[in-house]
Amino acid sequence: MKESWSSLDTFEPNFRPLVVIELAKNTREETREWLTSRIMDKKANGGAQLLVKPLVTESGDQNIYLVGASHFRLLLGAEAVGLVKECTDNSMRTFTYSSRKTFKGFADDNHSFLTMAECQYIIKHELENLRAKDEKIIPGYPQAKLYPGKSIVRRLLTNGILVQIFPLHDQEELKKLRHTWYGRVKIGYQPLDEIRCYFGETIALYFGFLEYFTFALIPMAVIGIPYYVFAWEDYDKYVMFATFNLLWSTVILEVWKRLCAVMTYRWGTLLMKRQFEEPRPGFHGVLGVNPVTGREEPVYSSIRRQLRIYLVSLPFVCLCLYFSLYVMMIYFDLEQWALDYHKESESNFSSLMLFVPSIIYAIVIEIMNRIYRYAAEFLTSWENHRLESSYQNHLILKVLVFNFLNCFASLFYIAFVLFDMKLLRQSLATLLITSQILNQFAEAFLPYWLQKRHKKRMKKKMYSQKTDTDLSLVEQVNLEKEMGTYFGTFDDYLELFLQFGYVSLFSCVYPLAAVFAVLNNITEIYSDALKMCRVYKRPFAEPTANIGVWQLAFETMSVISVVTNCILIGMSPQVNALFPDSKMDLILTVAFVEHMLLAMKFVMAFVIPDKPRDIQIKLARLEFESLEALKQQ
Amino acid sequence: MKESWSSLDTFEPNFRPLVVIELAKNTREETREWLTSRIMDKKANGGAQLLVKPLVTESGDQNIYLVGASHFRLLLGAEAVGLVKECTDNSMRTFTYSSRKTFKGFADDNHSFLTMAECQYIIKHELENLRAKDEKIIPGYPQAKLYPGKSIVRRLLTNGILVQIFPLHDQEELKKLRHTWYGRVKIGYQPLDEIRCYFGETIALYFGFLEYFTFALIPMAVIGIPYYVFAWEDYDKYVMFATFNLLWSTVILEVWKRLCAVMTYRWGTLLMKRQFEEPRPGFHGVLGVNPVTGREEPVYSSIRRQLRIYLVSLPFVCLCLYFSLYVMMIYFDLEQWALDYHKESESNFSSLMLFVPSIIYAIVIEIMNRIYRYAAEFLTSWENHRLESSYQNHLILKVLVFNFLNCFASLFYIAFVLFDMKLLRQSLATLLITSQILNQFAEAFLPYWLQKRHKKRMKKKMYSQKTDTDLSLVEQVNLEKEMGTYFGTFDDYLELFLQFGYVSLFSCVYPLAAVFAVLNNITEIYSDALKMCRVYKRPFAEPTANIGVWQLAFETMSVISVVTNCILIGMSPQVNALFPDSKMDLILTVAFVEHMLLAMKFVMAFVIPDKPRDIQIKLARLEFESLEALKQQ
Repeated sequence: MKESWSSLDTFEPNFRPLVVIELAKNTREETREWLTSRIMDKKANGGAQLLVKPLVTESGDQNIYLVGASHFRLLLGAEAVGLVKECTDNSMRTFTYSSRKTFKGFADDNHSFLTMAECQYIIKHELENLRAKDEKIIPGYPQAKLYPGKSIVRRLLTNGILVQIFPLHDQEELKKLRHTWYGRVKIGYQPLDEIRCYFGETIALYFGFLEYFTFALIPMAVIGIPYYVFAWEDYDKYVMFATFNLLWSTVILEVWKRLCAVMTYRWGTLLMKRQFEEPRPGFHGVLGVNPVTGREEPVYSSIRRQLRIYLVSLPFVCLCLYFSLYVMMIYFDLEQWALDYHKESESNFSSLMLFVPSIIYAIVIEIMNRIYRYAAEFLTSWENHRLESSYQNHLILKVLVFNFLNCFASLFYIAFVLFDMKLLRQSLATLLITSQILNQFAEAFLPYWLQKRHKKRMKKKMYSQKTDTDLSLVEQVNLEKEMGTYFGTFDDYLELFLQFGYVSLFSCVYPLAAVFAVLNNITEIYSDALKMCRVYKRPFAEPTANIGVWQLAFETMSVISVVTNCILIGMSPQVNALFPDSKMDLILTVAFVEHMLLAMKFVMAFVIPDKPRDIQIKLARLEFESLEALKQQ
Repeated sequence: MKESWSSLDTFEPNFRPLVVIELAKNTREETREWLTSRIMDKKANGGAQLLVKPLVTESGDQNIYLVGASHFRLLLGAEAVGLVKECTDNSMRTFTYSSRKTFKGFADDNHSFLTMAECQYIIKHELENLRAKDEKIIPGYPQAKLYPGKSIVRRLLTNGILVQIFPLHDQEELKKLRHTWYGRVKIGYQPLDEIRCYFGETIALYFGFLEYFTFALIPMAVIGIPYYVFAWEDYDKYVMFATFNLLWSTVILEVWKRLCAVMTYRWGTLLMKRQFEEPRPGFHGVLGVNPVTGREEPVYSSIRRQLRIYLVSLPFVCLCLYFSLYVMMIYFDLEQWALDYHKESESNFSSLMLFVPSIIYAIVIEIMNRIYRYAAEFLTSWENHRLESSYQNHLILKVLVFNFLNCFASLFYIAFVLFDMKLLRQSLATLLITSQILNQFAEAFLPYWLQKRHKKRMKKKMYSQKTDTDLSLVEQVNLEKEMGTYFGTFDDYLELFLQFGYVSLFSCVYPLAAVFAVLNNITEIYSDALKMCRVYKRPFAEPTANIGVWQLAFETMSVISVVTNCILIGMSPQVNALFPDSKMDLILTVAFVEHMLLAMKFVMAFVIPDKPRDIQIKLARLEFESLEALKQQ
């Protein structure tokens, strides 16, 4: 490989750019040459064996590179990441290059066997696994230390030499996807398989869950409407609604697991083996030996991490929770003040003023949630977790606890301390609707508008007024590299989680919540789709087999909702009337019913299999085959 | 293989008999010849390639065969069953013949590399996997149909041609084991590793659990004694005891999981891959195709099984539960009668009579439990489960529910309907002590005595008065084949489960229960050890990585005990005195505390890792290695 790589590459006939690497503007020549040669170097020499092409912009800067790979290389990469594909006999199998002929749709000249998202995932995987050999530093940057086995890309990222790596959009495909997804007004399912092909499994699964959850809420919404229309204030009807709600919430979460298994089996991720997890980019520590791999890598003592968690993070979270409760008490003072004002003046204005404290409080809650989010991210990253998954779990736990308290504490207070059902209903409605409006605005329309403005400016700058598909590659890359980065499905799931809380925790005092949730989710599907296609850079596909920790979070919420609903029912005048003589009997009955319901929930969760029978059989068949194959060896 | 197999075998120099096959007395010559030739036939011809030798008794019957195997054959078998052994670098790896040199203690002439229990397990596995080729029937028995792939041994068993297969004792080893296990009076741990070597993992794990559980009860017993000695009737002390009990029961179950992981890692079963499960011997159905293996085998529709379960078994279980409650009501009538009688006559005799109903009831409970057990076994076997594991789970569920109600219903009734704490304490004591005495008697000493008498008679018949170790092989086989069969650890775990119930459910009214449990368990260890070594035939070793469904059963019991203890505490006069004005506040407080305790339990179960850190690292290292190896291919 002594010849000039760039000349060699310019003449590569079918170089298809897949991934963009953006280096810092002032990156040294020697660093750039070293990096590109390492990326292009043969696998045998410790390289990634990918194709790299510099993107020459008008300004003449050479800090953007396009990465691609030959078809053969991508197939080998698919084997390395353990991609699972459908065979000609309709079974799903882990792809290997030697058995490539047995896979459906495989032909040596069929370049669409791997979807573009899969190709980009493979390239990302190969780039991240490009490791230092005997380099001690990054050429040109003596402060950027390397050691054998250290991921080069991660070191470049932490040192700021590498600005970003992102996959390119495919304007043609994107246009098609946009059309089937939200291009026409229609009632029907989302094209989940197409979304998965374009954005990968994690995002497709989010949209699948969003859709499923919306459908699952429809029966609740339908049952909820007459409560509003006929002003059913009878508590016996609310009892019916709450009971239905409890069973429903258990059933939908169990059924989701089954649906999820069906989808991810079809997509192949259910069978995909978990890869060994490398340290996350931000992880730092003194150089030591990893006891699992035996490789040299930074080591950070688990005890020091535990100390940071229990002595700093935990007290901080508790402080935040206390602050949130303090703000809540201010809200109740405001509420009282508005009530007094209304009683005094009795005007239209004053009756409007009744809603103001709730609206202000809802806005304050949203703001606090967002500020806390940054603090939680900072703290969790300071805790220095080795694995991305452990980082995510600690972050999710911190954020969930705070958001739960912040959003629902006032409702709990109203329900179980003030016993004011009218105020509860009013607060619930205001909180739910305000937070939905704020979210929709902050999440999709604001970024979309900013993006649109930016795009216009960019286009003007480039003196071109062509439509998207006619953009030249240079223009496309320049546009996309300035787009915002999608930071994963965390916020989207969190929003759904809080919505689920509003709908299920106090469902028996406000059955209309489900209606609002359904309406919100329908627009949410569209705004999230818009966000993915138009606002953000294309994210890398991320294979996944389930919604992970969110399943647990939703199940916990449904357990809490059993408790709250039982208490609310027990507090209702109608149920109280059934026990005129003894309050004690009432409470004991409610407690008994609650325990039975909880026991039933656990039995149901245990009895309903997590995977449908046919998927179970298919998985058993694969396991049997691999056992047989092992015996043959 | 046309030469006479028996002559060939008699001259095999180091044939070591491992397993005994007993055929029915009148088995035809052709069947015997066919079976032995099939067992000895080469693997390539579909045989088991084992060594078989007929055992000629004085009476001249040839219905007993001894099975052994060459060292080489056993090593191949160890690979086939996926045995995990320790390597020279102290890591645990799946044994393969090709990598045999890397294992600790391996040498081509070292015949003790595999323990005798492992060899016997391998032979059992090979015999059970000896499958019909093109035979349509068992030669000599046209009614015993075969089809390709059907396990021959299982067909012989269901048709009664094969009476039993059992592994031989090793008198030398057994004597050593007996000595270290219970031969000398000492305080210390059981030789679990030796027990595992001789009896296999399932039985060693039971004794490990029994020992661990006994140790875990000691703190409770120590705390419980002063309550009896100083007659502490203060409820605040009981509250302390109950709270301690709750936390303790959660912690010990979590810690057990970790200890269990440590043990089974050392024994290699934690890493052992689950083998594909064949249908259980009793399973029947019309011939069809198994969707998993694609092989021909009996198929029984899942819907018909469900119908049998829900339309017959479930109503039957409910009926039994109803009957058990009916018997309980009779007991309370008797109790009332005894009380009245005592009040009338006030004699010593009448005060003794007070205990009679409880003792009678305890005996009736034991009898009912045993009768029900047979009914449950019959029903579950009639449900026709394909897999042994599914059969076991359904049986355990049926038996657990009935035993739980049968043993504890009267205590619940006394505690929460009659509110009679004195009677509760008395009933609890009587039930616990009576059931322990009955169990010890029925389980170990009775069979031991019967066995002893039988052995004496046998020895007399054989005109020999030698000690055990001097017995000839013929005598040994003749003695052992008449010994009772050990049907697994089910009854032993069940006994511990009920004991755990007595100790934890109502611990706060009878702290002495833990003392009795500890005393019982110490003798239980000895009587169970005696039972295993002296009373029963040696059982086949059964690799296992945990105590399975019993972990779940014990955890469920500890959840129920949180609820009952909270209620009992709430009912105490001392706690009542804290809320003089309002019973309602009391109940609400108790309910709140209970929910917090339950939440804490779940959080603790979630936070305490199931495996110690070093085992986690070792497992991760193995997984990493296998991923790397896959990549190298």
